[in-house]
Amino acid sequence: MKDALQRLKAIDSECHLFAGINALLGWDQETYMPPKGLDARGEQLALIEGLSHERLTGPDIPALLASLGVSEQNPMGDPSLDKDTRSYLRAFYRMWSREVKLPGDFVRERAKAVSLSQAAWADARAKNDFSLFEPHLEKMIGYAKREAAYLGYGERPYDGLLDLYEAGLTVQETRQIFSKLKAGLVSLLAKIGSRPQVDDCALKRSCPIEKQEAFSRHLMPLLGYDLESGRLDPSAHPFTTSIGEDDIRITTRYLENDFGSSISSTIHETGHALYELGLPRAWARTVMGEACSTAVHESQSRFWENIVGRSLPFWKGQFPRLKADLSPVIEDVDLEGFYRAFNKVEPSYIRVDADEVTYSLHVILRFELESDLMEGRLKVADLPSAWNLKMKELLGISPPSDALGCLQDIHWSMGAVGYFPGYALGNLYAAQFTQAMVAELGPLESYLETGNFTPILSWLRRNIHERGAGLLPSELVKEVCGSALSHEPFLDYLNKKYAGVYGF
Amino acid sequence: MKDALQRLKAIDSECHLFAGINALLGWDQETYMPPKGLDARGEQLALIEGLSHERLTGPDIPALLASLGVSEQNPMGDPSLDKDTRSYLRAFYRMWSREVKLPGDFVRERAKAVSLSQAAWADARAKNDFSLFEPHLEKMIGYAKREAAYLGYGERPYDGLLDLYEAGLTVQETRQIFSKLKAGLVSLLAKIGSRPQVDDCALKRSCPIEKQEAFSRHLMPLLGYDLESGRLDPSAHPFTTSIGEDDIRITTRYLENDFGSSISSTIHETGHALYELGLPRAWARTVMGEACSTAVHESQSRFWENIVGRSLPFWKGQFPRLKADLSPVIEDVDLEGFYRAFNKVEPSYIRVDADEVTYSLHVILRFELESDLMEGRLKVADLPSAWNLKMKELLGISPPSDALGCLQDIHWSMGAVGYFPGYALGNLYAAQFTQAMVAELGPLESYLETGNFTPILSWLRRNIHERGAGLLPSELVKEVCGSALSHEPFLDYLNKKYAGVYGF
Repeated sequence: MKDALQRLKAIDSECHLFAGINALLGWDQETYMPPKGLDARGEQLALIEGLSHERLTGPDIPALLASLGVSEQNPMGDPSLDKDTRSYLRAFYRMWSREVKLPGDFVRERAKAVSLSQAAWADARAKNDFSLFEPHLEKMIGYAKREAAYLGYGERPYDGLLDLYEAGLTVQETRQIFSKLKAGLVSLLAKIGSRPQVDDCALKRSCPIEKQEAFSRHLMPLLGYDLESGRLDPSAHPFTTSIGEDDIRITTRYLENDFGSSISSTIHETGHALYELGLPRAWARTVMGEACSTAVHESQSRFWENIVGRSLPFWKGQFPRLKADLSPVIEDVDLEGFYRAFNKVEPSYIRVDADEVTYSLHVILRFELESDLMEGRLKVADLPSAWNLKMKELLGISPPSDALGCLQDIHWSMGAVGYFPGYALGNLYAAQFTQAMVAELGPLESYLETGNFTPILSWLRRNIHERGAGLLPSELVKEVCGSALSHEPFLDYLNKKYAGVYGF
Repeated sequence: MKDALQRLKAIDSECHLFAGINALLGWDQETYMPPKGLDARGEQLALIEGLSHERLTGPDIPALLASLGVSEQNPMGDPSLDKDTRSYLRAFYRMWSREVKLPGDFVRERAKAVSLSQAAWADARAKNDFSLFEPHLEKMIGYAKREAAYLGYGERPYDGLLDLYEAGLTVQETRQIFSKLKAGLVSLLAKIGSRPQVDDCALKRSCPIEKQEAFSRHLMPLLGYDLESGRLDPSAHPFTTSIGEDDIRITTRYLENDFGSSISSTIHETGHALYELGLPRAWARTVMGEACSTAVHESQSRFWENIVGRSLPFWKGQFPRLKADLSPVIEDVDLEGFYRAFNKVEPSYIRVDADEVTYSLHVILRFELESDLMEGRLKVADLPSAWNLKMKELLGISPPSDALGCLQDIHWSMGAVGYFPGYALGNLYAAQFTQAMVAELGPLESYLETGNFTPILSWLRRNIHERGAGLLPSELVKEVCGSALSHEPFLDYLNKKYAGVYGF
């Protein structure tokens, strides 16, 4: 068994090297690749994805798994193996069984199409012309349906895709938790709407990008991001990517008339990077050394972005530095005014710029449209109008252009269908984890105010990061918080915080 | 045969995609990779090199070659095939037969070692501490010897390595041509030394890097480099790399107190990039779509850098722009003074900064040391002192530090032994090609002065670039110039030019 385990890990390690190479190809495409490099890039990505798929579906693996006692009924393998190894085998089996269901030709073909689709999306968004992206999105939905068919699913094809990102998640459960969340958010939004609006004009002042970048570069190490193991670069849509276990890069987006956008993007992506850098080193380049789930990943970015990075104590500590770095842009602004402005709640078009209260409603919109697209209730050609209608329904506003509407996110252009719900679930996990953290560390205020993030990061490392993919998300939340995932901690957190911001 | 050819090309194409991926991994390592990313990068490079090697040595190829009539005696294959295809088969056979001789384990092991060696070299150079690099260089020389043994060779192991870069080149021939070249250069250098030295203080004035970069960015498209297919980034040692057939990137090096360095590096690398971008598109991603040889590649960079970029007519056209871009750094300098300063001949430590006259002597030094290392006459530990002695012998000076001596070049750290001679041969090719170009286009002065480089680039494309690797270098020079490679055109060019610069 020892030998079989070693051989399995060697295959896993090779696949993780492929994943790192793919990450670099992708990072380069989004940051520095010259425009005409796209054709070759598509072929390179397809080649690597195909090889990785081939390696992971090689004829040697079933025998290795069998000799470790792993089967569909018993994915943790032989009971005599140690606990971590059994968790590893379960994670490996989950990944492997999905992979063997996808034919190599399908994987290669889709990778090529994704590369072209991403470029078409960027072009369509720049030109505000959905028709340039439409045929590519059509293809992406087609690939998603084929993928679900290959993977198999319980009740609905979309279930098969949700499970890819959050083990065991179904359309039905998502609808249930989102309906309670929606009710709570709508009620809070109504309370906020009854109060005088916050003035955030100071945040919209013109601010040179170099000044914004300087503050971003201050934030990253402050929060514990080791820049010997990472980078910050600008890109159209901020992202975090893992090129090696010690090469975790983030990107951000600078808007001259909205410096708050780069602050929250940088902190958000730093949260993702801290998770990646905290994964169990002993399991590096294995599936056990990966994150627990997409939503748990998002809980880390949203925790740092919002629960830390939009809190009053955090800004008590950092506001003088912000003023200095942006000088003279907000010389006349005081802490309280900045804090309220940075937490202004107002329905708006762009998800990544949305406030904490409306953000999850953007996600619920995408979830509902995705399920409609997947289940044939909505045609791709009708997406722009459906999007605009649903924006009106959920947020009371209708975007003036598709660039500010259904073309804003990169995800569908990558064929990532089923990914969005995790963004809202991440908020729920983040709030629930924070309750557990406070139960152990006491109130966080003094840490945040003094910029002493070490106890907080250590807690996250110990409780979440270092567990890697050893637990399923439902197990992790139970282990860390002693309860199942709930919408309540998040709604409690929002209600309490915004009662302060809006004074009700 | 049609089917066999198609299958062969598909394998070739896959190997070229691997090469592009490797080029990106290498480019990133030299430009933007965070320092701790090195370990994973070494493994990624080794994985890709190993896969490419595996693909190219696959069991299907001998049968494909046999069915195309290709053998060691008849590398061009079946006589009924068209001319281009037969040239392709010869180029493929040359690459393939070298590759099958190298065991996969050797290739993988060396790739890993190279990655660590390159990092150690950069560190050793930064700290001026040869001992940090010594064990790695020892390994690289060991790998070079093993490589020669695997490849086979005529008289000496070093022959096997020279042939890698310049088909058929031997130590003996190199010694012969270098001895005539050395004599001519030494004689010219003596003439120059008898004249009053040129004053180049204006070139050593402090000049902000942004200003230097602006001028570099002006030069690239001016010479015909399409920036939709390329990039310029800073790195420790300037290089050109081919990530895709339309993604050819260059790097340069900015020295605050030597703006001429970035100008010549940028033009030099642009010359390489123009060659890569001009290779036969119909043969993209095949060995036929590669350059003819390292020395012919170097002829392109040296042609643009020196014959164009250090000529008086070129600067008649570009000097006003240079003055404006660098303003006010050289406001008081006149064209004639700048031209003479930029062509100052003076023995110096660094090859890449050397003038046209002493440059080839730097190369001859490396050739002689390399052959001594390869043939056991010199120990790696004694390299610094041997280097310094030979500098004294050839150039009359002795470097004050190893950073300015044997640690200056990246090549040996990459295990590239046998590469250097091409740098001097490139000068000879460049001068000989220029004679043929002038015979067809007439004197180049007016093109250079008006910045009309199209006829020159078109001539190079037609005569050299578009031929790819269809001809051996000895065939190419005969085809283009009607004669074998000679040291004379280069020495004629230098003697005439420097009689003007130094007035003798």
